[in-house]
Amino acid sequence: MTRPHYDITVNPAEKGREIYALIKALYPICRSITGNGVRQTLEMLQRYIPLKMHEVPSGTEVFDWTVPREWNIRDAYVKNSRGEKIIDFRKSNLHVLNYSIPVHRILPLEELKPHLFTLPEYPDWIPYKTSYYRENWGFCMRHRDYLGLEDGKYEVFIDSSLENGFLTYGEFYLKGEEESEILISSHTCHPSLCNDNLSGVALATLLARQIGMTKCRYSYRFLFIPGTIGAIAWLARNEEKARTIKHGLVLTGLGDPGKMTYKRSRRGDADIDRVVLHVLRHSGRPYHIFDFDPYGYDERQYCSPGFDLPVGRLSRTPYGAYPEYHTSADNLDFVQPESLGESFSRLVDIVRLLEGNRAYVNTNPKCEPQLGKRGLYSSIGEKERALLWVLNLSDGGHDLLSIADRSGLPFASIQEAAFLLMENYLLQPWTGESLQK
Amino acid sequence: MTRPHYDITVNPAEKGREIYALIKALYPICRSITGNGVRQTLEMLQRYIPLKMHEVPSGTEVFDWTVPREWNIRDAYVKNSRGEKIIDFRKSNLHVLNYSIPVHRILPLEELKPHLFTLPEYPDWIPYKTSYYRENWGFCMRHRDYLGLEDGKYEVFIDSSLENGFLTYGEFYLKGEEESEILISSHTCHPSLCNDNLSGVALATLLARQIGMTKCRYSYRFLFIPGTIGAIAWLARNEEKARTIKHGLVLTGLGDPGKMTYKRSRRGDADIDRVVLHVLRHSGRPYHIFDFDPYGYDERQYCSPGFDLPVGRLSRTPYGAYPEYHTSADNLDFVQPESLGESFSRLVDIVRLLEGNRAYVNTNPKCEPQLGKRGLYSSIGEKERALLWVLNLSDGGHDLLSIADRSGLPFASIQEAAFLLMENYLLQPWTGESLQK
Amino acid sequence: MTRPHYDITVNPAEKGREIYALIKALYPICRSITGNGVRQTLEMLQRYIPLKMHEVPSGTEVFDWTVPREWNIRDAYVKNSRGEKIIDFRKSNLHVLNYSIPVHRILPLEELKPHLFTLPEYPDWIPYKTSYYRENWGFCMRHRDYLGLEDGKYEVFIDSSLENGFLTYGEFYLKGEEESEILISSHTCHPSLCNDNLSGVALATLLARQIGMTKCRYSYRFLFIPGTIGAIAWLARNEEKARTIKHGLVLTGLGDPGKMTYKRSRRGDADIDRVVLHVLRHSGRPYHIFDFDPYGYDERQYCSPGFDLPVGRLSRTPYGAYPEYHTSADNLDFVQPESLGESFSRLVDIVRLLEGNRAYVNTNPKCEPQLGKRGLYSSIGEKERALLWVLNLSDGGHDLLSIADRSGLPFASIQEAAFLLMENYLLQPWTGESLQK
Repeated sequence: MTRPHYDITVNPAEKGREIYALIKALYPICRSITGNGVRQTLEMLQRYIPLKMHEVPSGTEVFDWTVPREWNIRDAYVKNSRGEKIIDFRKSNLHVLNYSIPVHRILPLEELKPHLFTLPEYPDWIPYKTSYYRENWGFCMRHRDYLGLEDGKYEVFIDSSLENGFLTYGEFYLKGEEESEILISSHTCHPSLCNDNLSGVALATLLARQIGMTKCRYSYRFLFIPGTIGAIAWLARNEEKARTIKHGLVLTGLGDPGKMTYKRSRRGDADIDRVVLHVLRHSGRPYHIFDFDPYGYDERQYCSPGFDLPVGRLSRTPYGAYPEYHTSADNLDFVQPESLGESFSRLVDIVRLLEGNRAYVNTNPKCEPQLGKRGLYSSIGEKERALLWVLNLSDGGHDLLSIADRSGLPFASIQEAAFLLMENYLLQPWTGESLQK
Repeated sequence: MTRPHYDITVNPAEKGREIYALIKALYPICRSITGNGVRQTLEMLQRYIPLKMHEVPSGTEVFDWTVPREWNIRDAYVKNSRGEKIIDFRKSNLHVLNYSIPVHRILPLEELKPHLFTLPEYPDWIPYKTSYYRENWGFCMRHRDYLGLEDGKYEVFIDSSLENGFLTYGEFYLKGEEESEILISSHTCHPSLCNDNLSGVALATLLARQIGMTKCRYSYRFLFIPGTIGAIAWLARNEEKARTIKHGLVLTGLGDPGKMTYKRSRRGDADIDRVVLHVLRHSGRPYHIFDFDPYGYDERQYCSPGFDLPVGRLSRTPYGAYPEYHTSADNLDFVQPESLGESFSRLVDIVRLLEGNRAYVNTNPKCEPQLGKRGLYSSIGEKERALLWVLNLSDGGHDLLSIADRSGLPFASIQEAAFLLMENYLLQPWTGESLQK
Repeated sequence: MTRPHYDITVNPAEKGREIYALIKALYPICRSITGNGVRQTLEMLQRYIPLKMHEVPSGTEVFDWTVPREWNIRDAYVKNSRGEKIIDFRKSNLHVLNYSIPVHRILPLEELKPHLFTLPEYPDWIPYKTSYYRENWGFCMRHRDYLGLEDGKYEVFIDSSLENGFLTYGEFYLKGEEESEILISSHTCHPSLCNDNLSGVALATLLARQIGMTKCRYSYRFLFIPGTIGAIAWLARNEEKARTIKHGLVLTGLGDPGKMTYKRSRRGDADIDRVVLHVLRHSGRPYHIFDFDPYGYDERQYCSPGFDLPVGRLSRTPYGAYPEYHTSADNLDFVQPESLGESFSRLVDIVRLLEGNRAYVNTNPKCEPQLGKRGLYSSIGEKERALLWVLNLSDGGHDLLSIADRSGLPFASIQEAAFLLMENYLLQPWTGESLQK
């Protein structure tokens, strides 16, 4: 047995700049849960990875839900009585209530007001609002501009369409040595918003490209899907396949300057939970772990009781805990290459740990083997401690991660010790059934 | 499935005054573990609830114990050499050592002294003392009066009887939908002492009356018994019935101004323990929980290893932690209607939670159901969070209480969410066997 | 059933002086993992206990190891060019690298230096160094003397032999009522070092003598073995016997003034771990408990995964946490009779608890028995609390130690209560199988 063929060397600064460039390219597109914005987005990702684009027809029943009609928009504005555009979709696609039905009317301010959305607390930011499942139209605007609106007539124009069509999502599958899969899921339904969720989309894309260049133990499935309805559609179309998901992560909000945050899976102590906890604990950087709750992103669907998949969520500052969330301030200034690079490094650490984590058995379990005669022992340092820990706990009942956690040593040291011991025929992979961590 | 027929609306202030009034009426009676005082007490309770009075003959063997002879007392005093009554049973029934045998003698102070009990630390209080199983006579008095005793002859007179008779206890049974019982036990053996335990007796009585006015899921058994020997006698006569006790509480010391206190059952994690912990945690008031120990009140018997019933104890300040305990200062000034009202509210909360706690199953376990199309979803507030928690954890393995505890939401919110979901056919009762909380 | 015949009364001060005297007698001998120094040491111990000396031939394979050739040394020195002995084995046997091969050469300082070992941080102390499995020769010296070495020629002389012979260890077995054994293991391979490990050797010897004077429930096996290779050799020759070890302790470093320290067995919650924790917690003295790790002394071998014996390690200041460790400063001034006496007391407490710890069953499990009629009950004090705890938890599922731990009372009180209850036929030994603590 030789060292694993799987390996990734990461330059976080360079990788951060690369991810940022992809976010910048994706930023102007007006996305929604359906429509051409999603297709354009996925096409842009196809320049990086050969992902497959899936189209699910409107009206398709997916569990308790129905795929909605497809929404597309070309233009939208509000003009005042002097004919001046006081709201212009072309300046920011956040200005339009996402999924607005077409409208072209002239109406007095009083009738317009119920269709205007602002953020009084952040008067210079445009809020991001949607109305997917209740037909409506509306505009989002700066509260400062709203306060300056004069009485009078306004022309509202939304050149959108809401028609039978498709829900579009991207899927990229990498076959590994094992059938078991690692799922990486990010949502593609937000228009010009950077942290939520171009950061997740771009990170997943570059991670997929990197993993695609190596041979892996696990198979990998990257999903680029509209939030909620996309995850539900995928699960409905892939019920059997979902059972092969052994570990999973939802990626979102990974570009802001806050500390790394992990939300546990519903199970709470799944391997992915243990792995991310280990990685963050040994990252040398502040982090926060919190327990599963049934709100948030698509982990809601993956962790619904009928699936209960071991899927956690990796973020930096949690959604709702930064004021820029779902506003025009979640822009290219808010996400930072440094943060994206660090997030990428942690993701690679997680993948590396998942790939390398196995249980072994000590081939010489009665007393210690004589390490000295094999040149494996000098004075006690971290290397020797790692060797002794792996020998002592490799009884089939402990995987390398649990040995790392019990010893307090980083996984990489424990794994290196395992390789050294295997090369010396003192360790072999555990093939038994009943692994108890 | 509709909302539960079981419901109680409580006005704590009013209820506190009602309980206090019953305590006041019971206060003058001289009770003991047997005798007419107990019968008078139970007769007074029969004005509230149709409890059944049981008589167990003296000499009956109950496990390791024997029901003692019946004690009754008519009068008692000590007169000094001038013929002045310096101790008078008619002024306070605490003056007589409970279970004193009859005596009528004239004797010098030196011979009297071994029969006098006082509290040097609280010179104005009369202690409460008993001698049930060792024949003796004695008087309890204020230490201040004791210090003023002059040398000379004293006439002691106790007009009591200790003869074959009965041990009397009260039992009130309410049949519910299920055979499983909730036991509420209070002791009736203390003479003019309010907190210990007229508070428990009165609270149990008014709770029984209130529960008797509704239809309940569980059957209820209220016991009004002399401490220790009464619980042992009941258990000895009802060994089989005791097996149907699913949850139980000993009530005592519920009228003082201290914070609510709960003593866990021997099992430590029985449903009653989880339920009371939840209720106190969400009461918005300070409280204290402590682990089972084999001292205290009748939980000692219910939690003996041959029964090991899931019975905890609800009190306010624990016995022994307030100086008024077992003295004349545990009087009508010490217990307060406000405290009694709050204790009653907590009891009702506990009953409500026990009645309502069940496990359900999500009928749409794969991904979330679309709450919006059912009008169940607007923006995320406590109501929506409760809906999502119930859906996510209703897999048969979690009862509503465990969902409430995991979510941090109050049980009532979780239960309300369950009703809403049932009304929308998204939830149904769990009928499986192996519930694991 | 009467009180246990097993009992030890200890006068710690006197015992400390006795142990110290044995250390003083053993101190001058030059020990190693083989050789006559070990034999002399064991002969000296035979004056206290009839231990058996075992000889394992060089070349014997013991698991992954081979018993090395036997090392003996008669003299050694380094002379400067003026013929002055600047290092003299006769002044301290630490001066010679343990297991040095014979040498007699004249060589310049530059060639000598690689064979000299010093402690720059403690310039007045001689380090203790070994080279058991790599042929080498060398001298250990004070760094202050090393700095004064002049250029020039030096005569080095080591009159040692490294030849086929034996590994010698001592074993003392005491048959008890049960086959199950308590193992007490100490290492005998260190030359003139007191805390590590003459303290362990001397304590084990006097404990063995004391236990030998009583009748015990358990059988006891005391091992006096060279570190690592000795434990491995014993385990290899006694694989079956090792399965009867029910509890075990490695003793070392028990004479320094630091607080008592216990290192848990690999299992972490073995009886020995619970017992030592209870003893230290109730000792009234500071202590420290730490988790198993696979470094340290012979617990490494006993706790290797193929054996996984319930063996912990009792020490005072852990090795490596005191600068005198493995230097000439670990001498007769460093170990103190007071510390040795306290260590002995704790050991006796541990043995007493192991001997006395059993599970019982309450013969009257339904409700409390009437203690008063048996004269066992007055007012509630520690004695009554202990009686009630033993009655309440003696259901076969709790041994006395777990009752002591749950109640917070010292084991001795709980055990005394058990005896009282047995004498009153209220308790009997548990003979069932499936004890769950």
